[in-house]
Amino acid sequence: MTYNRTIHRDTVRPEWVDYNGHLRDAFYMLIFSLATDAFMDRIGLDDAGRTSRGRSLFTLEAHINYLHEIKEGTAVRVEASVLAFDAKRVHLYMEMFADEGTEPIAASEQMLLHVDTTNGAKSAAFDADIAGRIEAMFRDAPKEARYAGRVIGLPSGPRTASASTGAKPA
Amino acid sequence: MTYNRTIHRDTVRPEWVDYNGHLRDAFYMLIFSLATDAFMDRIGLDDAGRTSRGRSLFTLEAHINYLHEIKEGTAVRVEASVLAFDAKRVHLYMEMFADEGTEPIAASEQMLLHVDTTNGAKSAAFDADIAGRIEAMFRDAPKEARYAGRVIGLPSGPRTASASTGAKPA
Repeated sequence: MTYNRTIHRDTVRPEWVDYNGHLRDAFYMLIFSLATDAFMDRIGLDDAGRTSRGRSLFTLEAHINYLHEIKEGTAVRVEASVLAFDAKRVHLYMEMFADEGTEPIAASEQMLLHVDTTNGAKSAAFDADIAGRIEAMFRDAPKEARYAGRVIGLPSGPRTASASTGAKPA
Repeated sequence: MTYNRTIHRDTVRPEWVDYNGHLRDAFYMLIFSLATDAFMDRIGLDDAGRTSRGRSLFTLEAHINYLHEIKEGTAVRVEASVLAFDAKRVHLYMEMFADEGTEPIAASEQMLLHVDTTNGAKSAAFDADIAGRIEAMFRDAPKEARYAGRVIGLPSGPRTASASTGAKPA
């Protein structure tokens, strides 16, 4: 079974842009966060599912690459795939596109933890039906996740301005 | 010369919390983004400096670790240090603390690119006075950056729920 990888559509809102009229870095992350809500809906952890099961997903860690600037009013869509998962965690990979573009304007990978919220927030194994939906997405994931697995750093580690190599930015 | 590493203070606002009353993941990133604005002020790229020089900083890439939940009304502070830099880029490391706590509730590293905004946005070398301020922060940075250099992934790569190791979350 294949599924539609587009899990979220939005439009850049006036309150999300900076002094230059461009989408501020943190609001790319908000769009990815809303996409993660949509991912929860898709696997059965929508609002009703979270309440009845007493479960939720927490973000442990995230990485984001900013690839292109966009302006207020731009329509965006987010495509998602599951890179990996275990009993309690999902490694989610997302790319954001502007309008009907095919080159991503941003990418994010996130590690999400499944928690039992009935008594504080303790990590818990996925229910079988939810694990089944995650596994279906995992089996259908594209082979390539271009911006996953990255480490932030300058090409040759710390140095001073006077020792610049003049390397091009990534 | 040592400097005060606290570059930003804020309070968790009502519009930043999720359905559980906790600070939503993307708004930790907004607080770090506001801290990056404060970093720009500190090195001489405040609003007046950006306008008169025709320069700005763009975020190329960011990584964030979510360590503790916090609720609406919590006071937070961000401490920043420069891990590395070259002629055009700064590798900034930040930790966020709640109230007067000494254990971080979140950490973020970011790669920032210096751009000339007078004709589009082309990467450009830092002016000497700005490079000097960045270098002073770099020389004063603590030796340890606990959450820098991380890669997102499950301990033994992709697997299915049935093959779970039962490993504890990080």
